[in-house]
Parts: sequence; C-alpha cells; structure tokens
Amino acid sequence: MRNAILAALCVVAAAVLLDACASLPKKSLTGPLVIAQQGSFFVGGRDVHSETLSTLPNFAPIGTITVDQIYVHYQIPVDARHHPITLVHGCCLTGKTWETTPDGRMGWDEYFVRKGYPIYVIDQAGRGRSAANPSIIDAVKLGKTPPDQLPAIFSAGHEAAWVIFRFGPEYPKTFPGMQFPLEAQTEFWKQMVPDWNPSLPTPNPTVPALSELALRLNGTVLVSHSQSGIYPFQTAALSTKGIAGIIAIEPAACPNANGDLQPYTKMPILVLFGDYVDQSPRWAPRLKACREFVEATNNAGGRGELVMLADIGMPGASHMVMHDKRSLEVAEWLSAWIERKLEQ
Amino acid sequence: MRNAILAALCVVAAAVLLDACASLPKKSLTGPLVIAQQGSFFVGGRDVHSETLSTLPNFAPIGTITVDQIYVHYQIPVDARHHPITLVHGCCLTGKTWETTPDGRMGWDEYFVRKGYPIYVIDQAGRGRSAANPSIIDAVKLGKTPPDQLPAIFSAGHEAAWVIFRFGPEYPKTFPGMQFPLEAQTEFWKQMVPDWNPSLPTPNPTVPALSELALRLNGTVLVSHSQSGIYPFQTAALSTKGIAGIIAIEPAACPNANGDLQPYTKMPILVLFGDYVDQSPRWAPRLKACREFVEATNNAGGRGELVMLADIGMPGASHMVMHDKRSLEVAEWLSAWIERKLEQ
Repeated sequence: MRNAILAALCVVAAAVLLDACASLPKKSLTGPLVIAQQGSFFVGGRDVHSETLSTLPNFAPIGTITVDQIYVHYQIPVDARHHPITLVHGCCLTGKTWETTPDGRMGWDEYFVRKGYPIYVIDQAGRGRSAANPSIIDAVKLGKTPPDQLPAIFSAGHEAAWVIFRFGPEYPKTFPGMQFPLEAQTEFWKQMVPDWNPSLPTPNPTVPALSELALRLNGTVLVSHSQSGIYPFQTAALSTKGIAGIIAIEPAACPNANGDLQPYTKMPILVLFGDYVDQSPRWAPRLKACREFVEATNNAGGRGELVMLADIGMPGASHMVMHDKRSLEVAEWLSAWIERKLEQ
Repeated sequence: MRNAILAALCVVAAAVLLDACASLPKKSLTGPLVIAQQGSFFVGGRDVHSETLSTLPNFAPIGTITVDQIYVHYQIPVDARHHPITLVHGCCLTGKTWETTPDGRMGWDEYFVRKGYPIYVIDQAGRGRSAANPSIIDAVKLGKTPPDQLPAIFSAGHEAAWVIFRFGPEYPKTFPGMQFPLEAQTEFWKQMVPDWNPSLPTPNPTVPALSELALRLNGTVLVSHSQSGIYPFQTAALSTKGIAGIIAIEPAACPNANGDLQPYTKMPILVLFGDYVDQSPRWAPRLKACREFVEATNNAGGRGELVMLADIGMPGASHMVMHDKRSLEVAEWLSAWIERKLEQ
C-alpha cells in the first residue's frame, strides 16, 4: 500500500515536471511520450436487418448488424494546449496513413501529440476497423440477387496508385526530386485496402459521423486527405458547430465555387497541394477547381488559403505528403498555421 | 536554441524521474502513461496480380496489390521489464477488441503497457487495417466468374453473436451474474466487421505472419481469442522460435490431442475459459477438446494449464473476457501468470 502511494506520488511529480517542461516554447520530438489519456470509440452507425449475413452453416444468415459508424482512436498529451486535430485518411487507405511512415519515421499522429495537440484518427465508414456490410455479396453468392448488384469494391493497384500519388508520370518512372521514400514502397503498398465507398449512401456516412465527433470535441480542426477532401466541407454544410478549422491536404474535390459558400466563411480554411500537379491530368483540374473555390469563398467573406508546398520552400512533395521525407517539416508548418489562424 | 536545450533537458529529467518511479514495485493504473516508443508496421504479405481490381472507370482494373499482411500497432512503456505480449483478436472483430471497453474502461492493451509490457496488437490478415482482396467480387460483378465463386464473407448478427459470446442462452436472455457490460452493447456491436477468413489460404496468412513477428520480437507471449485460438499453436508448429508462451482466451479450437504435440511442450501454455460453457452446445465440446489437448501435452512433457475463471474466484465471465466488468482483474491474474511461468 505504501509503495502504491509512493509510486502514485512519483508519477504525479514527474507529470508536474513534464507540465513545466511544456511551458517552455520548444516541444521535444524525442524522448518519452507522455499521454494523459488514450483509447478508441465509435461515432455514428445504424442497425440494419439482413437475411444474408452469411453463407456458412455455423453463422446464421438472418440478423441485425451495425454499419456506417467510424472508428476513432485518440491520444491526448499531458500538456494539451491546442485545438484537437481530427485526421481523415483518403482513398484505399485507413487511419494507418497518419501513423509511422513506410520508412519507419514518426507519423503525424504522434508528431502533433508531441506538439501539444489532442489527436483523433479515424477509419472511414466501411473501411479498416469501421464495418462494411457483406449482405449483397452473400445474397449474390446464394443466387438471390443478380451479380451486377454487387457493391463496387475496388483496390488501387501499385501501378495505378504510383501515378495517382504522383510518385512519377507513369509507373515506375519518378519525378525528379520527388520526396516519397520509395525505398520503403513494399511497406507502403501493405497499407492499401479495398475501398467500399461507391457502395455507401450519399452523403458518405463518414460526414455526419465527423459532425457528431466535432460537436463532441467542441472545436476540432478537420484534416482531410485526397478522396476525403470534400468531407470536412460537407460536414460544415451540415453544421459549422464544432469545426474550428479545415485543412484539406491534396483534396480530390473542393466545394463548387458557384454553390452556397456561407458555411465555409465561418472558419479558417487551408487547401494544401504538393508538387508536380501541373504534370498530372488527374490533379491539375482539381487544383484549378480548389483555387476557384478558395477565391470565391474569400470574396464571400471567408478566410481561405491555397498553398503550394513548393512555393513555401518545400518542393518535391508527392500526394502522400505525410509520408514524404519532409513530412515533419510540413507538419511543423501546419502547426504554425493552426497557431496563427486559430489561436492568435 | 537555448529554450530547445532547456526543454530537452527538462524532458530527460522527467524521464529519469519516471524511470525511478518504475523501480517502485506497484505500477500505477492511473495518471499519465509514459511511452518510450509507439507506432505501427506490417508483417508478411505477398503481391498478387489481378485483372479485376475495379469496376469503376477512374480506377484501373489491372494491376498488383499486396495482401495477406497483418497490421501491427505497438506501444513500449518507458520502463518495459516483461516479455512483449502480442494480442490477436477473434472472429468478426479487429484489434479494437483489446482497446477501450464498450463501456469506456481501459483496455488490456493499455493495462499491460502500464504493467511494463511492450504490447503488439494486430489486425488479422484480410480484416480491419489488413488488406483483403476484392478481385473475385469484381470478377463476378463483371460477369467473368460465376457467383458461387464469391468469397464467403460473413458478419455475425447481434442475435447470433449474443449466443456465441455467451451473454445468455438465447437472444436477448442473459445468464444470471453475467459480467459483460450489456448497457454498452450498442457500442460493442459497432466493433464487429465482416470476416473474410473462409476465403483466405490455409494456414491462415496470420499464422506465418505471427511467426515472423515472434522472431522479430525475439520472445513474445502470443495471446489469442476465440477464432484465433488455434493460430499461436499453428505458429508454434511452424517454429517455436520467438514464442515465449501461449495464452489462449476461450479458443474456438485447440490442437488435436492425438497429433504431434512436441512443439507445444516447448513453452508454458494457458487455456482460459469463462463461465456458462457447459450450457453452450457450441462451446462445451471445444472446452472438452482443449482439456484433452492440455492433458496430452502435459503427458508428453509440456507445461499446459486449463483454467476456468469461475474456479479462481471470477465467476460470470462471458466469452468477451477482455470487456467484462472484471476485465482488469483477469488481466492482473494473467500478468501474475506470465511472471510466475516465464520470469521466475
């Protein structure tokens, strides 16, 4: 008992010391990581009755499952002093995107925790640890539903992803100076998972779930990537409550510049793009549309910014900015942007 | 620069203090959690060429994907002083199993870290953050493959899972004194995901991946649950190297008592069951078979134990032992078992 009290006091003393450390301006990116609280939970979800949950004798076909929820993993540093950040991965990927880079360096999840941000990493609805619904697949297997009704589940092959992620103009060529750690590409390909998104309702269930999460966090910066780029904007269109800011990393889409822009005038917005965009028929028009959106939003009274990493001294960024060799430089710049736009 | 040095020194001082805390016998389950290192990586995996990765115009159908790897998330406490533990979830679930309980209490993942164990939580191959292969689904959708060739993907409905997880004899009746936090069942159902296992190769790719992980960790306790119960044994049959011990929590299968038991004589083995097993036509024969396996292994020179939680003062355990209201009591008992069997 005495030892337990001593141990508790000892940890409290260490925590007080660490808290004092935190008041020093520069946060350490090495050494022990001190977490006040961590864990995981789900947001959203709905019950679905199905008669084709299984084609196996030992699992009943009839029953209720819960789908459309999002898995959320969080860490809150002991010296949290910034807005919480919610990290939303892109196509064919999961929350793993934000963790350890393919070449084994610290991910943005830990970086921001070390900088004093509570971090919430999600798996989009229907992917990773967020359940998909196999009912139609089993209905087709059982001959109850025609094959063309199967969900359009797809995987991005290495060769296609190579071009989409702008490692180079075509597989396996690389853009000169490109910063993605290609020496670790075999580890990177293992991150990619089948994407069920085309089979999900519209708006994607991740959107209302992000809204619920933002309300619960009472003010979070929604950070999207690629295919999820439109989600924080769609979330803001549902309700701007709880959204402290939006950072769209290489969004596949921005809201229509000719649509209702009022929701997007309520918070600071950053649209961030890497390099070689003009050389990509897929990305060049997206960049153009995002430029038009930001300009229109600012004309409507908004506080939007579109930044090309090459223009701020960080050339060579691929689409996987959070994995690039300069990933932590970019994260540091983002942290400064958040402090400048949201906290001054 | 001066501030950076001060901050670094400050954190080092705090770490030294925390390390001193750690030398006190009783580890704290509250207060800040101090992590020396955390992150995630993949083990295993193989490249597959496919011509049906997609049915969508904007994603190429032809290409290479990587499948059969397992996602591994780890945390190493600053004062690690035990064998690493590898946590392997069961059917229709993911690594989330071991995190925060449905009613919001600390999961076994954090508990063991706080007790000084490095913890490795995996997602089984083909599930969660470990990629599945959608090629056959797309081939059937495109009319290239007959529907009966579809993978047997299944989800366990709430009603079926209720009985399998022994919340009660039939849905929605409960066993008297049953310890699962049913008040949080809606959060629990959200953990369940479609299970692709029947469509995976034999042995399940999780098995060789666990072997590779065990070698890398140079001695780990493999903790399985339910459907994964047989995997650590299959891993040991591949190679006993790196396997410091096996803990099978409510295994759906134990090795055949009449088979080659030599691999299982090389390490301490614990088979742990909860309550109400005799009232379950699904589980009673499995328990019986595991008893026979443990007895036969011990007759062959092994060090196996089969423990019923009710017999050691913890009645009322459901199949989801790590979520039950007594979850941390069970974890504490497991920690003592590991210390007793592996470290004395």
